[in-house]
Amino acid sequence: MSVAIDYAAVLAPNLPGPAGRFGGFPRYNFVGGHNAPESIQVDGFIAAVQRVLAREGSTLATYGLESGPQGYRPLREFLAEKLKRDAGIVCAADDLLITSGSLQGLDLVNEILLQPGDTVIAELFSYGGAISRMRKKGAKVVGVPLDEHGLRMDALAETLAKLRTKGIAPKYIYTIPTVQNPTGSILPEDRRREMLRLSAEYGVPIFEDECYSDLVWSGERPPALYALDRAEGGNRVIHIGSFSKSIAPALRIGYILADWPILSRLLAVKTDGGSGALEQMVLAEFCRDSFQGHVTELNGLLQTKLDALLDALSEQFGTEAEFSRPPGGIFLWVKLPERVDTLALYKAAAAEGVAINPGPEWSVEAAPAASSLRLCFANPDVATIREGVAKLAEICHREFGVPARGANVDR
Amino acid sequence: MSVAIDYAAVLAPNLPGPAGRFGGFPRYNFVGGHNAPESIQVDGFIAAVQRVLAREGSTLATYGLESGPQGYRPLREFLAEKLKRDAGIVCAADDLLITSGSLQGLDLVNEILLQPGDTVIAELFSYGGAISRMRKKGAKVVGVPLDEHGLRMDALAETLAKLRTKGIAPKYIYTIPTVQNPTGSILPEDRRREMLRLSAEYGVPIFEDECYSDLVWSGERPPALYALDRAEGGNRVIHIGSFSKSIAPALRIGYILADWPILSRLLAVKTDGGSGALEQMVLAEFCRDSFQGHVTELNGLLQTKLDALLDALSEQFGTEAEFSRPPGGIFLWVKLPERVDTLALYKAAAAEGVAINPGPEWSVEAAPAASSLRLCFANPDVATIREGVAKLAEICHREFGVPARGANVDR
Repeated sequence: MSVAIDYAAVLAPNLPGPAGRFGGFPRYNFVGGHNAPESIQVDGFIAAVQRVLAREGSTLATYGLESGPQGYRPLREFLAEKLKRDAGIVCAADDLLITSGSLQGLDLVNEILLQPGDTVIAELFSYGGAISRMRKKGAKVVGVPLDEHGLRMDALAETLAKLRTKGIAPKYIYTIPTVQNPTGSILPEDRRREMLRLSAEYGVPIFEDECYSDLVWSGERPPALYALDRAEGGNRVIHIGSFSKSIAPALRIGYILADWPILSRLLAVKTDGGSGALEQMVLAEFCRDSFQGHVTELNGLLQTKLDALLDALSEQFGTEAEFSRPPGGIFLWVKLPERVDTLALYKAAAAEGVAINPGPEWSVEAAPAASSLRLCFANPDVATIREGVAKLAEICHREFGVPARGANVDR
Repeated sequence: MSVAIDYAAVLAPNLPGPAGRFGGFPRYNFVGGHNAPESIQVDGFIAAVQRVLAREGSTLATYGLESGPQGYRPLREFLAEKLKRDAGIVCAADDLLITSGSLQGLDLVNEILLQPGDTVIAELFSYGGAISRMRKKGAKVVGVPLDEHGLRMDALAETLAKLRTKGIAPKYIYTIPTVQNPTGSILPEDRRREMLRLSAEYGVPIFEDECYSDLVWSGERPPALYALDRAEGGNRVIHIGSFSKSIAPALRIGYILADWPILSRLLAVKTDGGSGALEQMVLAEFCRDSFQGHVTELNGLLQTKLDALLDALSEQFGTEAEFSRPPGGIFLWVKLPERVDTLALYKAAAAEGVAINPGPEWSVEAAPAASSLRLCFANPDVATIREGVAKLAEICHREFGVPARGANVDR
């Protein structure tokens, strides 16, 4: 009798392929949304942990501490204040649901809204993990083009109208309005108002993902779509955010802000026993006094790295790499000449320790992004950024003749 | 133009009802798997955080720290040693996947194995959250009766044979062998070996949930099913566990132990950006030196509370409450006379601040558990346990005439 189960016969159908073993981070790591190691406020976290645990550590004995399933109340109170100050949002702690990263926010919102066959609208170039989640739920994703100021409202209106003629009511418009991923744009207030108008006209909710919105160099951003909607007494927007980009990605804490009729549905499908309580406690304790100062410092650090990346790209690729300096964030969207296939470049580069996001993985449609790539600049140090871009230029020259003069040959 | 979206038209079908607002914990809280507030090692956690953050805090800047998506390596190394010492399991850190509580372990295993129409086998009385998860995936759950030593192997054999005659191959046998939830039994080694034999005979994997197995008063437990299977060179068992019961439930950290062909599938559907890193770091640092001492102390504390509960039940309900002293855990399974409907008792008690788990919620079939209830005793203090049981007896007497002499009337 065999003691070996044939799992091929037991696995559910349509699973993604098996994961590979983790072999450490690549030498030149321009992917993954990691942050700058030197930005981590180690002393601040230690002090915060000491204070909060000494005061209320024994509450770790209960699921949800004493705050219930919406998450640690002092963190929600901090967020309510912060969202008012930074995003113009008037809300209360009870309007917020703490999640295990904004990725869980995406999952929960999709769980209550999507079923196979549904249609959703997204920015044509968008976060790969959001697009893949929509598709995993069986939804058809319709991409709407962007320009340098973000989602084009004429194109959105056209898409909504076209879908209506087909009898299709999209489940939501997914948007990253502030520091759009991957293009880095910030949607101006007039476009936000127009998006809300279209949302009302077509009865389609807006799913606003603000996970990068703290990382704006100027420190100023337009009011959130959620804020503008509320000011008009609407309920059109479900808003999510995160501490991953502003504090530390390994702390898996994000949040959802929505009307109670929606929040109560999200809460009902959040059956995880709560998000990590110690991380919520530390964040609340640390952020109350230190969030703004930290983010100002972080943005300075990020700009130094961004400038190193821009310089290196100009030096190595000259005018063959097209990009504009983003007003914030941790990534740069780069367009190379048409003959560069970034999916192929991605593979060739990976083999030599240079990790990039090929455009098609960050796009609803592969073709328009075939020669584009996303480079995350927050994690590597300035010297590594320079070396990595030189290496990438060398590989790209070898594979595609771009840049025309190979950096390591002619310089 | 209305700025109000009609979400009723947008929500996916078949959602659970909306959650209610959290109004604080009930006065007499015998539900929820919470632990003893006085057991939380506040000073130990503070010291652990200081050490680990001072040493490697800056790694919080990267998703997964430097350990990759399987979780913080020092925690996996601790677990590999602990599982060898306590459960007889020979495994390596690379065989383990850290999860956000063992609830995520349940979700991930179900995600790769179950599809609508599948059949799974579970103990007739079992963890409500496990049963509801199987059903949410569209699986039919077949319950197999237990006795005082856990799952009955004759009944399991009969169930497997009966399903085979119908051409049904169950996806797994879900079992909580050590401190079974809710009955508290510990499955003896000979039954474990028989279960493995049946697993091989029918080609049905075993899904072993060991989240309570550290809480055994004697400090000794039979080898895990996973250990016995491995000793025979098998791959029959997927094993999950948790720190929720042994350290603190609000720290959302559990783990899955499985063959790489299964683990790599689980990893591929774990798209959460990693489980909470700070919590993993603190656990690894704390547990290395302090796990065993802490658990010994905790088990002493839990027995004191259990004895208070048993005394109070005997005092209040006399022989009308049937139970036996469990060999470990945080809950007691109590059988009341047939005329008590514990779903109705649960509602009446909730209205007066006494929270209990009605039997039908902890059972694959409602009827056999209609007069049973589960009482968690880890969280309330001894005085609250006594008061709560007196209150429950009073309510039960009023509603069902059980106990025959109302505690608050005749004593």
